Amino acid sequence: MLSTRISGKPLSNVLLNPRSIALVGASDDPRKTASRPLQYLRRTGYAGRVYPINPNKATVLGEAAWPSLSALPEIPESVFLLASTSAVIPTVQECIRLGVKVVTVLASGFSESGPEGVQREHELRDLVQGSSIRLLGPSSIGIVNPRNGLMLTANAAFAEPDLPVGRVFVASHSGSMIGALVSRGKARGVGFAGLVSVGSEVDLSLGEICSSTLDDPGVDGYLLFLESLHCGEDLRRFAIDAAKRGKPVIAYKLGRSDAAAEMVTTHTGAIAGEDDIADAFLKDCGVARVGILDALLETFPLAQRLALGEPSRQRRVGVVTTTGGGAAMVVDQLGLRGIEVQAPSVQTLQRLRERGIEVAAGRAVDLTLAGVNYEVMKTALDVLLEAPEFDLVVATIGSSARFQPQLAVKPIIDSLDNHRTPLAAMLVPDAPEALAALTAQGVPCFRSPEACADAIAAVFFRRTPATFRSHSSAAADARALSEAEAYRLLKQLGVPCAAFVTSALDGPPPDLAFDYPVVAKVCSAHIPHKTEVGGVLLGIRDEIGLAQAMATLRGNLAIRAPNVPCDQILVQKSVAGLAEVLVGYRVDPDAGPIVILAAGGIWAEVARDRSIRLAPVSVDTAREMVSEVKSLKTLTGLRGRPRGDLEALAQAVCALSQLALRPEMQVREAEVNPLMVLPEGQGVLAADALVWQA
Amino acid sequence: MLSTRISGKPLSNVLLNPRSIALVGASDDPRKTASRPLQYLRRTGYAGRVYPINPNKATVLGEAAWPSLSALPEIPESVFLLASTSAVIPTVQECIRLGVKVVTVLASGFSESGPEGVQREHELRDLVQGSSIRLLGPSSIGIVNPRNGLMLTANAAFAEPDLPVGRVFVASHSGSMIGALVSRGKARGVGFAGLVSVGSEVDLSLGEICSSTLDDPGVDGYLLFLESLHCGEDLRRFAIDAAKRGKPVIAYKLGRSDAAAEMVTTHTGAIAGEDDIADAFLKDCGVARVGILDALLETFPLAQRLALGEPSRQRRVGVVTTTGGGAAMVVDQLGLRGIEVQAPSVQTLQRLRERGIEVAAGRAVDLTLAGVNYEVMKTALDVLLEAPEFDLVVATIGSSARFQPQLAVKPIIDSLDNHRTPLAAMLVPDAPEALAALTAQGVPCFRSPEACADAIAAVFFRRTPATFRSHSSAAADARALSEAEAYRLLKQLGVPCAAFVTSALDGPPPDLAFDYPVVAKVCSAHIPHKTEVGGVLLGIRDEIGLAQAMATLRGNLAIRAPNVPCDQILVQKSVAGLAEVLVGYRVDPDAGPIVILAAGGIWAEVARDRSIRLAPVSVDTAREMVSEVKSLKTLTGLRGRPRGDLEALAQAVCALSQLALRPEMQVREAEVNPLMVLPEGQGVLAADALVWQA
Repeated sequence: MLSTRISGKPLSNVLLNPRSIALVGASDDPRKTASRPLQYLRRTGYAGRVYPINPNKATVLGEAAWPSLSALPEIPESVFLLASTSAVIPTVQECIRLGVKVVTVLASGFSESGPEGVQREHELRDLVQGSSIRLLGPSSIGIVNPRNGLMLTANAAFAEPDLPVGRVFVASHSGSMIGALVSRGKARGVGFAGLVSVGSEVDLSLGEICSSTLDDPGVDGYLLFLESLHCGEDLRRFAIDAAKRGKPVIAYKLGRSDAAAEMVTTHTGAIAGEDDIADAFLKDCGVARVGILDALLETFPLAQRLALGEPSRQRRVGVVTTTGGGAAMVVDQLGLRGIEVQAPSVQTLQRLRERGIEVAAGRAVDLTLAGVNYEVMKTALDVLLEAPEFDLVVATIGSSARFQPQLAVKPIIDSLDNHRTPLAAMLVPDAPEALAALTAQGVPCFRSPEACADAIAAVFFRRTPATFRSHSSAAADARALSEAEAYRLLKQLGVPCAAFVTSALDGPPPDLAFDYPVVAKVCSAHIPHKTEVGGVLLGIRDEIGLAQAMATLRGNLAIRAPNVPCDQILVQKSVAGLAEVLVGYRVDPDAGPIVILAAGGIWAEVARDRSIRLAPVSVDTAREMVSEVKSLKTLTGLRGRPRGDLEALAQAVCALSQLALRPEMQVREAEVNPLMVLPEGQGVLAADALVWQA
Repeated sequence: MLSTRISGKPLSNVLLNPRSIALVGASDDPRKTASRPLQYLRRTGYAGRVYPINPNKATVLGEAAWPSLSALPEIPESVFLLASTSAVIPTVQECIRLGVKVVTVLASGFSESGPEGVQREHELRDLVQGSSIRLLGPSSIGIVNPRNGLMLTANAAFAEPDLPVGRVFVASHSGSMIGALVSRGKARGVGFAGLVSVGSEVDLSLGEICSSTLDDPGVDGYLLFLESLHCGEDLRRFAIDAAKRGKPVIAYKLGRSDAAAEMVTTHTGAIAGEDDIADAFLKDCGVARVGILDALLETFPLAQRLALGEPSRQRRVGVVTTTGGGAAMVVDQLGLRGIEVQAPSVQTLQRLRERGIEVAAGRAVDLTLAGVNYEVMKTALDVLLEAPEFDLVVATIGSSARFQPQLAVKPIIDSLDNHRTPLAAMLVPDAPEALAALTAQGVPCFRSPEACADAIAAVFFRRTPATFRSHSSAAADARALSEAEAYRLLKQLGVPCAAFVTSALDGPPPDLAFDYPVVAKVCSAHIPHKTEVGGVLLGIRDEIGLAQAMATLRGNLAIRAPNVPCDQILVQKSVAGLAEVLVGYRVDPDAGPIVILAAGGIWAEVARDRSIRLAPVSVDTAREMVSEVKSLKTLTGLRGRPRGDLEALAQAVCALSQLALRPEMQVREAEVNPLMVLPEGQGVLAADALVWQA
């Protein structure tokens, strides 16, 4: 969808600070959705000029109504179009004609609604593309800036009195969720610097809107509610710029289960849009992706304190607690997310002892009821927050947090800013007042062990993003290379291939520069899937066998692909590796260039055993990918098994991923499957490959 | 630990309804823990007689204090022992001497505290075992019955005013968690019929305590906070009896992450106590195990309405919503837990249309903003709750739930009891009043998509428990059988084995009733792990090879196990299956008899790919187990691969599991590894086996 969007036009700060607003289709009936923006703007006392437009009414909610945009005494900077779908195109035409800067479209009925809607969306896009107007939506429920009372929204949730003002900006694919986040945020003492429902991003994309607020000093970070990676390039550019400015981005993304439920496939092309690609994308962009809705609202203070990209940062979490059961829940939930809570060192235990705190051995520092005491908890925190073995300390507080926060919660607040190590709190009882106090003081704090662990994992598993690089998004038809051409390309990149020779299909068996046994395959750019035409014969032991194989291949082609051009065969040395893997590169329409390392053979068919990154990757990152593919653990010398050449595998993954830096090669997709992993020191060899060029 | 606990002694209702209570070690200092029970009991106006005992004070908190138990004017039915560890044994002795019925011990310092504590615990156990007293603890923070004001606890959380009274009983291994559950329950409008901190279960076990309340008409269900399956037999007996009475049991159990993090091992014995065993145990006992703390408090109404064990019950969930984004979160979270939300049938969509409700195609019935209307939502629910394709309908309500619950929440309450299909609600905004109204009316309702999906999965994945059977818990030393003896036992059970013959190790090669190639193995009850002594030789092609192999085996034994008795070899026909699996049976010390089906070979080493049930299992259940082992999907005809004899595999799993019904065989553990799975119709064959007898 990237190619179908307009971008790059300037976006002034009219979006969040319009001096004048017209509400087209404003309703006089206060129960109607289309009456809400005017009600809200009047309630907040928005300082800009607001014009309700309704050709059928003299007044709207007691104010003089205007018959049309052109009848207004000025050109409004911003127009909120509340009318029905059919009115959208003519009104946007009028906005363009008048020179309106931003128009927000509430109506749905575009590409999500069948062929007619798709046609309507094309028309709308063409309109906008040919002008300097910027369009939010369609299907946008509006935009809110609590800092200046801009309640330009039709969302019922903004009837909320005392909208909490704060320093995080919310952008959401779902319009209703911005309302839910407001009420859930309010219940947590979390306020907002702005909220936008981006709708279907026909013009303004979520990433572009967020980017436009990056220099806003009132915005310290971002919460994203994502349904997809639509307009991924803008999102990536925004996330990278946000990381540079130290403004954390937290995201909740739908679509985890589809990925989990689907059978994995060995064809890279078929796995686009899957959740693990989105996950790799977000992490590689430095985004903290949470898996629990409440964590979307609770992660920001932690993300702020655990700055992204400190090279020395590890993931060593210490837990101190007044309640063994409560701490065990946190330890458990962190463990489920791959973070092992660290026990304090002998030195740290000694330091605690010197200050009168004797704790039993265990992962968590369990102060028991003795910790329900300001001095004891403060002393323990002072020691733990200076201990070199922790990158984060979580204080888990039991029942006292509800009625006596001065005992064990207050020391957390008092320890927050005096130490090198970040600190977070998890309260085991329902303790709204203590949570409010912690939140008000900026202490990362959590009301459930699940949200606590989810937030910590999301923040720790961010990766420092690479420099932004635009990638070609031209959706031109791709053409396949023959296997021999594919190998030439792989060799250029530095991916080793099994020895082969090509020869005329109807000629004699070729001379081989390598030993039997060999494999014989049809070799044609027109037959990307050779096995489907019986085009691969294995285990050929000698020249006679090869001659027979060539005859068989000719016969198979004559029957199964009689009209497909193919005059070559490729004869390849048989290679037996310790394991087979798939290494793939592709330009994902949403995520951009990605590289995939996946288990081969039987594993690929029954388990989602793969690692994904945005391409290109360094050898270090490729090594990380190798360590993430479970089945490759069998090549690490486990139980006396031979070690595979995992270093060569990492080199090959890195090499293939460099396609992202070689636009001249015009590769849209390249898949080595199988890549044979030989014993340690003997390298890896591509034994089949398929490349698609744009 | 089973063997170290006493059980079976009668437990009167003194635990929850004592007529007289003594508080031994009651403190006069209101800030001290040991002063709390008296404060609480006086505050609630507990109707029974309460005697504070403190030999050093004339009064305690203004009441006359008694110097000792024997000085009291009556024998108290219940004693809460608040004194230090050293006072426990003498006081319990005195309780026994006097004829006290129940004593609760607060102090810790027993088996969790090193050798001295272990000795102390033994002494305590012996004391109790030789008497008719029942003991709660040690390390019990007490027991609470909000129905009669019995606040016999030292937990600070019970300073809570207006303790919520209700119909669920809480039992917890963690003392502090009963306090956290009270405050979290109160915040949700969930009340309690009782709460008990079971401590270390030296006498009274969690299961036994819960069992004692099964006939209490004020108790409708149970919430368990478990740290382990300690005293699993009592827990199982309780859960089965609770299921019979239709009283749901919901459990949150710690220890999920250890299991997730550990490498799987092929030796069944080493995987005891792992979380997937506990998970199988709980599900097989009919317990709804939740994974999210809040779900422990929110699942009960759903468990009550989705009765356990309706044979026709499937897991088909329909979702109706006013907010696409909110519904998508629920669909996503259910999908992550293996529950696919069903789209409505064509007939159902037609019925909605006939009643004026037009919805777009999709998994969820998205009424959009039109659903924020009593009539529309009520009509949609009336149709969906009568549709035959749903076993549960979840209504996901957006922002209106916060301010206008009469629009879309009220219809949920009004639809609850008029239809065949159970109904639940998930509210997307923070909507405390709507939640309170739903809870008060008994509607299963959730405040997060995660808790909603977790609760639904926990309730759906319960299994109807089998009849309770006690199993031998004697921890006698086990002895191994030789491989040949093991095969004879397997054959008796009906597990097929590869053809073999035994022969003298130093004799000539035996005559074979089967073809080469063969495997030769040392055969001795004293060598359970043959490969460790070089005792297995594969791929022997003829008699000469066999003679050589026997010589090699003799040589290996002479070097690696010179003093181990072994005078036999076992020669076995080589069998190549399509796959190798492990089938194991063992008497787990906590869970009792279990049967395990696990992936063999490489899979077992790198992935936790196995299925576990309490033994014995039916063939139907064994088939379910086969379907749960991922790697066996490769034997289902996938991508043209040959099908394996999975039916024979299920038969073999069922057969081995019958060991649970054969106490005369005295098998503590039996492991077939590998069991070869042959092509469809050709069966399965054990190719190695290890059996341990008690």
